[in-house]
Amino acid sequence: MIKVSVIGGNGYTGLELLRLLAKHPQVTLSHVTSRSYASQVIGQAFPQLVDLGDLAFENLDLDKLQASDLAFICLPHGHAKAIVENLDLEKIRIIDLGADFRLKDPATYEAYYGQPAPRGDLLDQAVYGLADIYPEAIQKAQLVANPGCFVTSVLLGLYPALKAGLVDLQAIMISSASGISGAGRNESLDNLYAEMTENFKAYKPLTHRHVPEMEAELGRFAKEEVKVQFVPHLLPIARGIQSTIYTKLTGSEDLTAIHQHYQAAYQASDFVQVLPLGSLPQVKQVRGTNRCQIGLAADADAGHLIIFSVIDNLMKGASGQAVQNMNLLFNWPANLGLDQLTVWP
Amino acid sequence: MIKVSVIGGNGYTGLELLRLLAKHPQVTLSHVTSRSYASQVIGQAFPQLVDLGDLAFENLDLDKLQASDLAFICLPHGHAKAIVENLDLEKIRIIDLGADFRLKDPATYEAYYGQPAPRGDLLDQAVYGLADIYPEAIQKAQLVANPGCFVTSVLLGLYPALKAGLVDLQAIMISSASGISGAGRNESLDNLYAEMTENFKAYKPLTHRHVPEMEAELGRFAKEEVKVQFVPHLLPIARGIQSTIYTKLTGSEDLTAIHQHYQAAYQASDFVQVLPLGSLPQVKQVRGTNRCQIGLAADADAGHLIIFSVIDNLMKGASGQAVQNMNLLFNWPANLGLDQLTVWP
Amino acid sequence: MIKVSVIGGNGYTGLELLRLLAKHPQVTLSHVTSRSYASQVIGQAFPQLVDLGDLAFENLDLDKLQASDLAFICLPHGHAKAIVENLDLEKIRIIDLGADFRLKDPATYEAYYGQPAPRGDLLDQAVYGLADIYPEAIQKAQLVANPGCFVTSVLLGLYPALKAGLVDLQAIMISSASGISGAGRNESLDNLYAEMTENFKAYKPLTHRHVPEMEAELGRFAKEEVKVQFVPHLLPIARGIQSTIYTKLTGSEDLTAIHQHYQAAYQASDFVQVLPLGSLPQVKQVRGTNRCQIGLAADADAGHLIIFSVIDNLMKGASGQAVQNMNLLFNWPANLGLDQLTVWP
Amino acid sequence: MIKVSVIGGNGYTGLELLRLLAKHPQVTLSHVTSRSYASQVIGQAFPQLVDLGDLAFENLDLDKLQASDLAFICLPHGHAKAIVENLDLEKIRIIDLGADFRLKDPATYEAYYGQPAPRGDLLDQAVYGLADIYPEAIQKAQLVANPGCFVTSVLLGLYPALKAGLVDLQAIMISSASGISGAGRNESLDNLYAEMTENFKAYKPLTHRHVPEMEAELGRFAKEEVKVQFVPHLLPIARGIQSTIYTKLTGSEDLTAIHQHYQAAYQASDFVQVLPLGSLPQVKQVRGTNRCQIGLAADADAGHLIIFSVIDNLMKGASGQAVQNMNLLFNWPANLGLDQLTVWP
Repeated sequence: MIKVSVIGGNGYTGLELLRLLAKHPQVTLSHVTSRSYASQVIGQAFPQLVDLGDLAFENLDLDKLQASDLAFICLPHGHAKAIVENLDLEKIRIIDLGADFRLKDPATYEAYYGQPAPRGDLLDQAVYGLADIYPEAIQKAQLVANPGCFVTSVLLGLYPALKAGLVDLQAIMISSASGISGAGRNESLDNLYAEMTENFKAYKPLTHRHVPEMEAELGRFAKEEVKVQFVPHLLPIARGIQSTIYTKLTGSEDLTAIHQHYQAAYQASDFVQVLPLGSLPQVKQVRGTNRCQIGLAADADAGHLIIFSVIDNLMKGASGQAVQNMNLLFNWPANLGLDQLTVWP
Repeated sequence: MIKVSVIGGNGYTGLELLRLLAKHPQVTLSHVTSRSYASQVIGQAFPQLVDLGDLAFENLDLDKLQASDLAFICLPHGHAKAIVENLDLEKIRIIDLGADFRLKDPATYEAYYGQPAPRGDLLDQAVYGLADIYPEAIQKAQLVANPGCFVTSVLLGLYPALKAGLVDLQAIMISSASGISGAGRNESLDNLYAEMTENFKAYKPLTHRHVPEMEAELGRFAKEEVKVQFVPHLLPIARGIQSTIYTKLTGSEDLTAIHQHYQAAYQASDFVQVLPLGSLPQVKQVRGTNRCQIGLAADADAGHLIIFSVIDNLMKGASGQAVQNMNLLFNWPANLGLDQLTVWP
Repeated sequence: MIKVSVIGGNGYTGLELLRLLAKHPQVTLSHVTSRSYASQVIGQAFPQLVDLGDLAFENLDLDKLQASDLAFICLPHGHAKAIVENLDLEKIRIIDLGADFRLKDPATYEAYYGQPAPRGDLLDQAVYGLADIYPEAIQKAQLVANPGCFVTSVLLGLYPALKAGLVDLQAIMISSASGISGAGRNESLDNLYAEMTENFKAYKPLTHRHVPEMEAELGRFAKEEVKVQFVPHLLPIARGIQSTIYTKLTGSEDLTAIHQHYQAAYQASDFVQVLPLGSLPQVKQVRGTNRCQIGLAADADAGHLIIFSVIDNLMKGASGQAVQNMNLLFNWPANLGLDQLTVWP
Repeated sequence: MIKVSVIGGNGYTGLELLRLLAKHPQVTLSHVTSRSYASQVIGQAFPQLVDLGDLAFENLDLDKLQASDLAFICLPHGHAKAIVENLDLEKIRIIDLGADFRLKDPATYEAYYGQPAPRGDLLDQAVYGLADIYPEAIQKAQLVANPGCFVTSVLLGLYPALKAGLVDLQAIMISSASGISGAGRNESLDNLYAEMTENFKAYKPLTHRHVPEMEAELGRFAKEEVKVQFVPHLLPIARGIQSTIYTKLTGSEDLTAIHQHYQAAYQASDFVQVLPLGSLPQVKQVRGTNRCQIGLAADADAGHLIIFSVIDNLMKGASGQAVQNMNLLFNWPANLGLDQLTVWP
């Protein structure tokens, strides 16, 4: 059993972590923080977590935090770096679910987040927590930068294609759609039930903060610069991300051969599921799970490959992948605490 | 490990059972039937059940069924009795999720279901599977009649009040609302997404087939005849039942005292949760779980008690309670395979 | 053409009024106020109202308001009285969509709204704007108190029964369910899409502010004191209210005779539609319209009558009825600007 | 007043036509057909259409049909051609909402629809009813082929760009999402509420029947062959289509200049609304209206233009545009019977 802190426990990713950690057989929750809910019993404020018993939210206590074996940080960008800079990383491991440690380039961070980047040594030390692709690196990390939700769906969808050099790196168009929990648990007129039911809309086309993270990581896959056109959309659902990725094939392999690249790339994965040709993923089939489902379609004549990638934004796109990273850090089975089946319909 | 059959595996209650049994540590699925999906691999027809591997739906095979230790029957009324009459109940235990064995009175069955009642010896033998109230009787049963979904929410809500003689048995008004999965997985214009989104409606007021089951079982609690006015409504949600029960108090106990009756009645229950006074249940807080949440409100002057009872119709209202009954039949811990936390939001 | 002001134009009832008034052939909008949107062009802030052209929200200007022929006030309780007390009611007519002038009894207002009641002469002068029941009184009014949304659905549902003396006035149980727009356009965690989708819950049972208004007006119908048990619920839909009203019959008239009372009571109404016996209303069938649909069911043996009443809370429950009241004030046809058919599905 | 027939009145497009025609000041409904509802009073089968009074569905009667001035045909493909071939088109005008007369090339029709194409003289005579682009041709037509829903959103979105020669005709990627009513009013497990709520999925990528129609009509705009990659998705909403169109710019005009092309192209249109730069459309803002809202975004460095086009699939994507075409055929004002404002929220 290890002692785990959750910093920022009352947002959607924090609450999702608490749901998972409450049933994880190797974890004791030692310090769960929330400014707005401080001193409230978690299972009373959020009755769905009644199994947590008397455990209460607390204000952040750095000593208590430092005394944990592991901390998950679920805070808006800029806050994690301030905390991590004050910890002794030899004695605690960190999984940051925010954006602070995802971008290696300080200038890009500053341009997109409008504030100074984290300390250089921390950026150097941080390991990008794309758990299905980089398990070895994560196992050795002290500080894990958990990937963004849109980014995860896109990276897992494109990884086999880029690794095998199948597609034009300058002609990648991405249309993603996310459930509203991706916008966080914030008071907002735009996210009121009445405004979003029966609605659908694009937002921040081409300028979303996930673009530089996406392009940087795709560049690592391709070992070459990659440029994408990314448009996110908002769906009237609570959870789920679907990314439809339009690519231009550079070679002449047919869809069956491409499908084999995908199957090979993920044959060892516990969570990424390449669907049979002819099947397409649905967000509802992964809801509440740490799965990523991938489907493929091609226009052989015109040389286009379309990739469909589906995740639950709060699970594989945030807290599920964070627990998967924890399992890597502590050498536990990959799906410990993560073997839920979807509640369907 | 026991061998379990699921007869009628492709409806919503059958699929929910498969979800639960796939992760139950004491169960091997030996025979899962479906006429319309016969010979299809379950995890391909329903990708959310991919963990079932190669297991396929089959046509009903009575020998194979008889060779199981336990069968769950998830068929429309009238079909279970035909199967059970052909089984040797000394060698297999049955949990029927349909209505065939719920009504002890053959005439009532025939009036409400328009066909002959099951054989008298089977009706005598059947134990009503309200698991939180009758655990001892269920433990000894060979044939369990799993309660109806609306009925479960109402019985659990009224049990402490009737047991303690708090309310007028001739003045109980029940307003229930159910998610659409309660109507089953049937092709139906009425249940199309486009027709039900942004909709709400009552149906079958006072004449729903759950009324005689409700009144018979309430009568067992009260040891006296009980008459209810029951109106079900249809909600634009997939899962969940909320029952708001209007009663007239017969004595002068105040709400605090009444609340204590409720807490006492369920203090040993793993699944029924009496909320603190001032809190009201929400269907979303029990979704995907075997929980029942109960809240109370009273108009002291006029002498009215309002009871709020919330369940997931496919879990506590069907397959969850069926697994709870299986755990009783085999003396396993009450929440084995049933300790899921709600996926929220 | 008359000059109309809308005070508080950016809430859901204000916006709904603007939708109706934009197409009303007798109305020119002269002063539309909003503190938070002041100086913004309405059709840019709310693109669905693009037909309003250059018209902009303004800060409240009492002179401009006084210069109108009619003002609709769409403000939280307490604000309308402060405005009306400063107007010359000989020169402007007022329809208040809030609660300030609905309760004749100052003590009740103060108990439920926690502040001093409006001036006595204004309370005396105010006419309760239940347009289908009191058209003559409204025609002569200077100050109309537009009824509450739940109240409207309940009053229209009970009016024929109380007028004909059919039911026990001390045994009326009301279960209502409202779409979320009824909670207003306010930043609120509880009303976020992610929290309310797939949810349903009761709130403020027996203590909702609409109870005294309901009981007072029902008392006017019955010419006797009436006591109700009222429980509102929140639905995952944007618009619509359904009230299911449980009553105890005092006489021996059968359902056919009762149905005739209902048809007679509303035969002259443009908006209240009594459905044939056997039909039940659905909220989606009145969405976006000023209709009220009423259905009936009875348990002859036990002597119970159940009444189903359905409206759109923003239309018949607020802005639609307000326009109906305007049409009365100015002697225009009842359905001028109110003859929309539901957008279905 | 003209006499109008609606052939196939009980599907979603037929019902939407009835909603519009019921309030159209120049129309008398003379023959509304439905096989499954024949002889039922429309306003009883569909209470939202109560204003139609005693009008009943009938079986198709060719003589009665021929005696109309205009017929709308709302039937699955293959059925319209069989009817039209038996009519004297000198005496009746036809607006076909199905696919039979949309494709000029018989071989393409046969390849995509698996049956013989309509008679050549009828194909020659049919005018493509894209009302905002081809008003003059439509005014003179006897037989109008009303465009497909996805196609309409895409054509209106791309028209100014192709007319002005702004984009590469071989690099157009289209990601569209449609509400479920687009799948028609058919009994179908896939479209049940329980299966689609909280879901999102792609279907028929690259192979949808709207592709040849899209490419043929885009080719007319560009006077050159056009090739698109089209992926439709299904949204958990009743109505609405959003198309996000990725294009590659061929010239160096900046977004402001491109926006001016769009404004110029639609300045005379009653229904197509080009939003200010920085604004993006939302499906809910056009629901129930005949509007198309268009927004633009560009990546100047990489030379990409993204076009966002939003319609109501049952209105501008079907019955609304059909009424717009009727107004053209009879020289009535463009928005006669089509000036509804969105019911929002």
